[in-house]
Amino acid sequence: MVIDTREPYKVIGTRPIRHDGADKVTGRAIYGADLQLAGLVHGKIVRSPHAHAKIKRIDTSAAEKLPGVLAVVTAADLPDLRDKMADLGEGSVNLAHLGANVLAHQKVLYKGHAVAAVAAINPHIADEATKLIRVEYEPLPAVTWVLDAMKPDAPLLHDDVYPEDMTGGRASDKPSNVSKYLHFEEGDIEKAFATADVVVEREFKTASVHQGYIEPHVSTAMWNHDGRLTIWTSTQGAFTARQQTAELLQMPISRVTVVPCEIGGGFGGKIPVYLEPVAALLSRKCGRPVKMVMTRAEVFEGTGPTPGSFVRVKLGAKTDGRMVAGQAWLAYDAGAYPGGMIGPGCMCVFSCYDLPNYKVEGYDVVLNKPKTAAYRAPGATQAAFAAEQVVDELAERLGIDPLDLRLKNAAREGTKRVGWPAYPKIGFIEILEAAKKHPHYRAPLEGPNRGRGVAAGFWFNIGLKSSASASVNPDGTVTLIEGSTDIGGTRASVAMQLAETLGIAAEDVRPQVGDTDSVGYTDVTGGSRVTFATGLAAYQVGLDIRRQMAERAATLWECKADEVTFDAGTFRRNGQSIGFKQLAAKANELGGPVVGRASVDPAGPTNGFGLSIVDVEVDADTGKTTILRYTVFQDAGKAIHPSYVEGQMQGGTVQGIGWALNEEYFFDGEGRMRNASYLDYRMPTALDLPMIDAVIIEVPNPAHPYGVRGVGETPIVAPPAAVANAIYHATGVRFCELPMSPPKVWAALAKAKR
Amino acid sequence: MVIDTREPYKVIGTRPIRHDGADKVTGRAIYGADLQLAGLVHGKIVRSPHAHAKIKRIDTSAAEKLPGVLAVVTAADLPDLRDKMADLGEGSVNLAHLGANVLAHQKVLYKGHAVAAVAAINPHIADEATKLIRVEYEPLPAVTWVLDAMKPDAPLLHDDVYPEDMTGGRASDKPSNVSKYLHFEEGDIEKAFATADVVVEREFKTASVHQGYIEPHVSTAMWNHDGRLTIWTSTQGAFTARQQTAELLQMPISRVTVVPCEIGGGFGGKIPVYLEPVAALLSRKCGRPVKMVMTRAEVFEGTGPTPGSFVRVKLGAKTDGRMVAGQAWLAYDAGAYPGGMIGPGCMCVFSCYDLPNYKVEGYDVVLNKPKTAAYRAPGATQAAFAAEQVVDELAERLGIDPLDLRLKNAAREGTKRVGWPAYPKIGFIEILEAAKKHPHYRAPLEGPNRGRGVAAGFWFNIGLKSSASASVNPDGTVTLIEGSTDIGGTRASVAMQLAETLGIAAEDVRPQVGDTDSVGYTDVTGGSRVTFATGLAAYQVGLDIRRQMAERAATLWECKADEVTFDAGTFRRNGQSIGFKQLAAKANELGGPVVGRASVDPAGPTNGFGLSIVDVEVDADTGKTTILRYTVFQDAGKAIHPSYVEGQMQGGTVQGIGWALNEEYFFDGEGRMRNASYLDYRMPTALDLPMIDAVIIEVPNPAHPYGVRGVGETPIVAPPAAVANAIYHATGVRFCELPMSPPKVWAALAKAKR
Repeated sequence: MVIDTREPYKVIGTRPIRHDGADKVTGRAIYGADLQLAGLVHGKIVRSPHAHAKIKRIDTSAAEKLPGVLAVVTAADLPDLRDKMADLGEGSVNLAHLGANVLAHQKVLYKGHAVAAVAAINPHIADEATKLIRVEYEPLPAVTWVLDAMKPDAPLLHDDVYPEDMTGGRASDKPSNVSKYLHFEEGDIEKAFATADVVVEREFKTASVHQGYIEPHVSTAMWNHDGRLTIWTSTQGAFTARQQTAELLQMPISRVTVVPCEIGGGFGGKIPVYLEPVAALLSRKCGRPVKMVMTRAEVFEGTGPTPGSFVRVKLGAKTDGRMVAGQAWLAYDAGAYPGGMIGPGCMCVFSCYDLPNYKVEGYDVVLNKPKTAAYRAPGATQAAFAAEQVVDELAERLGIDPLDLRLKNAAREGTKRVGWPAYPKIGFIEILEAAKKHPHYRAPLEGPNRGRGVAAGFWFNIGLKSSASASVNPDGTVTLIEGSTDIGGTRASVAMQLAETLGIAAEDVRPQVGDTDSVGYTDVTGGSRVTFATGLAAYQVGLDIRRQMAERAATLWECKADEVTFDAGTFRRNGQSIGFKQLAAKANELGGPVVGRASVDPAGPTNGFGLSIVDVEVDADTGKTTILRYTVFQDAGKAIHPSYVEGQMQGGTVQGIGWALNEEYFFDGEGRMRNASYLDYRMPTALDLPMIDAVIIEVPNPAHPYGVRGVGETPIVAPPAAVANAIYHATGVRFCELPMSPPKVWAALAKAKR
Repeated sequence: MVIDTREPYKVIGTRPIRHDGADKVTGRAIYGADLQLAGLVHGKIVRSPHAHAKIKRIDTSAAEKLPGVLAVVTAADLPDLRDKMADLGEGSVNLAHLGANVLAHQKVLYKGHAVAAVAAINPHIADEATKLIRVEYEPLPAVTWVLDAMKPDAPLLHDDVYPEDMTGGRASDKPSNVSKYLHFEEGDIEKAFATADVVVEREFKTASVHQGYIEPHVSTAMWNHDGRLTIWTSTQGAFTARQQTAELLQMPISRVTVVPCEIGGGFGGKIPVYLEPVAALLSRKCGRPVKMVMTRAEVFEGTGPTPGSFVRVKLGAKTDGRMVAGQAWLAYDAGAYPGGMIGPGCMCVFSCYDLPNYKVEGYDVVLNKPKTAAYRAPGATQAAFAAEQVVDELAERLGIDPLDLRLKNAAREGTKRVGWPAYPKIGFIEILEAAKKHPHYRAPLEGPNRGRGVAAGFWFNIGLKSSASASVNPDGTVTLIEGSTDIGGTRASVAMQLAETLGIAAEDVRPQVGDTDSVGYTDVTGGSRVTFATGLAAYQVGLDIRRQMAERAATLWECKADEVTFDAGTFRRNGQSIGFKQLAAKANELGGPVVGRASVDPAGPTNGFGLSIVDVEVDADTGKTTILRYTVFQDAGKAIHPSYVEGQMQGGTVQGIGWALNEEYFFDGEGRMRNASYLDYRMPTALDLPMIDAVIIEVPNPAHPYGVRGVGETPIVAPPAAVANAIYHATGVRFCELPMSPPKVWAALAKAKR
């Protein structure tokens, strides 16, 4: 792909008001909970009070008799999914596990696990009815810490889960809580570590944290009399939700329509289905549309957090700073069912550096927590928290500036990353150079208990499939239908690429997100892919429209279409010219309406690098850490709408800070989460933080015509490590466990003083 | 265009259950009145009690003070539309007139004319508020009969309307109620009539009748804070409604989105906007979505009926039956503003016959009735009521069977029609031959006061613009988005053409009607065009998909795309083959999702002919006419879904029978309609009629790949004339005035007896 060289662009790089802005700020946008349908009834879920138990019996009779109750469902209402697998776009998925997570089958595996559901004429009766469902449990011992779950005598969650090796084969014939073992190796680490002048090795722990999207999960399902199922839901991917639901209900996907409502955050957590199949089963039973909305406690207890983890990292370097070997051993929670984030964890732990010798081992471990879900650069933050602290310590031991050490070893074009071919053109060195020159890095930081930390972060951007279509209005505006749920302003970033391609204003494109019947197949909004891949589809739609418009111009000028050229919004031929808008007004008479369409599937991931500089002050009396100043750098390839790139950088950083300082699932002795509310699960607010200063670096991505890289996920990766490095430089104590919450910091400082 | 010769088709000609069937019969389909929006408020219209009056003053202050009232609007809230014209797809329209019909400006021109509107928190308060709006009128004399309105001393409705001639120029400089004069002439009628052996000349009158759609007009408008306007409405054309509304509000069309709801009938009457701009103005004032629903009386009094008419027809023939000359003089109501149906009336009056000499004159006349709107073959039924009775009388006078006389003079390929070039291949002769052979025509009809009548009918099918797009699902089904509101089963007839083109089942296509942001420009559902033109778009979408699927097959087989052939759902190359569905399952991996699109604008009209045979019995004591047997014949070109073609033939026939026997607007001495309810405006019900026997003739249309002709409108044209001819043969009395209601028939029979 050739990068468009018409810089400066007319639309790309500007900051127009987002197309959905007025709807969002005036409350007009329709979120799932806003949906009203004739005859709507309300569903509620019965959840397990135990972290691990056998289900001996479910008695729904009392609930069914309650006036106003219309339907009750349990796992018995799902089809038999034993031994059924499905490819949901990113590898094969065990449907029996997916189904049992939606409605528990024989066992409950975490507190909050869905066991049954009721539909009633109002939410209060539905709530009442859930209390009338008698579930007889046989409690079992629970395990919630990853290393405990790996022990031979740990409570076993599944008798049908075996450790899987890199090839998908069984690494052992004994059922185990370890569901996957990964192993990457390059060079000879034994020999290399032996040549190193300095070796640092440390162990790190992180707690389960939740994405904390503002909008709880909500789904409404209508099972029609002709067997068609329509689902309105808050999802990151309408097509994925359609496929998961169809597979779980064992019906053809074409019988299911998923209408994606506006979404109040997802961060990866709104890719799996939870309520959708349950609402569908209830609707099938009662013949009415059924709406289900989670409470905040249900979101914490019943949906997927990011894995808690244990990570050991060892790095060796020569005295000149050249790193010679790296070793990592990672064990990540999968939650109650296999399929966690260990793969990307392994692939990202050393991805910022050019390491000639490495060995990386990873373990995916099931345990009595909710099944994990993706959370912004899933698996990378835990790994960076470990690796970037070890790099910081290495710099200190070598007496080299931490940015210089990173520059010396920085990944660049041609560097081979763990588990992947060599990098194409990337921008990590440009980031490091920009950081070194930035006033923040040069600013003095004085005062006691204050320290500065830096850390780098890496995340892939995936491609996957996107579709779009657009039609030209007679007034020269263009309506665009795309398949990507808009979470972070992608209506704007996709529409702007179409506008640039057509030489019209951003405001002249009207973008709209289609449902699964209205637009071609489009993968999830995830993997930082939308502005890259759906933007690429919009670009190709633009080319399709330009081609057809050139035909209209040729009809007008009575020439051949290939004699017509296009540049910056104007069609030309032999001294004749006509603007896009003027031609649009005539298009209907010159051959009919113009409709463009494209589907893309760009191969292979591209790459996103970022870096944080943070200044902190630690209150020695309370252990509270205050962020004094924060600057975040990232290579956006090309920032289509810089405000939304900055927004992603700031938002990801803030989530990373929350993870660093406060957020965690507290489990009691029986494996039950005890802080499932925003009062007790502490996320940062605007009052807790200074302005996050965002510096966009632009090293164009050669795989996109406008050079776009994904930007959504990378910003969360560096902050926990950067904050930890800053706290170390403020206090002299290195923290190897997340969160670095006031009680833990206070205790560690007290211990260090003794 | 080459007609597809793969008959017998696999899908076309079958009768699958319509895709929207379950939604319609279970009440799930969302009609405009079903729409619920957060913050919805309700609008009501204040209407004129006078048929003609000056508006001296409107005092809205009392209404505005009523608690719960949120906005009041009058014509003063519309932009100044003086001298503004707009091309709304079928010629230039005077926006000042269109605007004044929506909210009266300075004068009211018919009883029920909208004068003001209010929005309130519920419909009851809105109703109450309409009564508090004080309008001071100066009543003027009214005129409601077309010949009266043409008199020099008639009350003049407009001082800015002048008679327009064929070229659009002024035929006179004196303002007049005659707004248009048309004149078509061929050969020398004086000379030709002189050579005729038999000449018949008669005068005919028809009353205003209404389309009588079951669903009243309903619109909801939301004027958003960013200046965007969304309208949910019951309309035959979302794009036309968008453009009319945008022009009336003088805003760019791209700021307006029209969402077409399901529609409960239209028949041409739901093309003009009535409520849409008013709801928009109210919403702009109060910042809330405003819903407006008409009562049945408002529909009768405030929306467009079909013209009342006066028609004089003269035909001359030789003794062998050869017609030598025809003359027609037609005067049609335009209603309160210019722009009626006189053009098609003139063009259809002799369209079934090959007349070497003719003269046709037509007058479009404004008068104090609601502005007329299209009603199924608009203008043709009035003309056929006249011409087909004269043909019947000619046959009697010549002693020739009426079908034989029609056969002798029948229009065929090459016949030149009034105001249009020669016919391409048409099927009128095939219809006449089928009718002659039909058992109904040969069946004896005995008993007193019984008679049989035949009559022919003609209507154009227009082409105009249609767009569609479709995407292929991995399970081999296809979702189709098209822009044509589905009134009579066109989701099925359009989807079936795509299915046929792709070699898949009708049920494997899921059709959906898009809003103005979701699909390319598509003209109204009218002119019997949807199955023809939008079907053509679906066919071309199918070709686009086949081409892309062939590329996928070529990737699979590692060959060139042009080596892949497609036949009946299977792709082949050198002994290799793969079915559409099997290939669809692999398409994503072979190059990404497949999305097809097309926009068409087929040039020129095609032609639809029909014929009725009807047996009646007239009760001499009451004047009531009973339909004993009815057979309707029509050339469908190719019937895509025969049940819906039969449905159109039966439905049009029933409306024609209603028009023939009962329906009419009764006006009192002050020009006010006095029967604006279904109790007093008598439409036929299932209990009034026998089964209408429908015989489909198929003479493929050379302008469509599957030979489709439009079928929706032609069936209403012949019935009034056929019933009149049957009554004549039953009673010996020829009725030249519609409706032939019991009082009129009784009086005429009584007079004939004297």
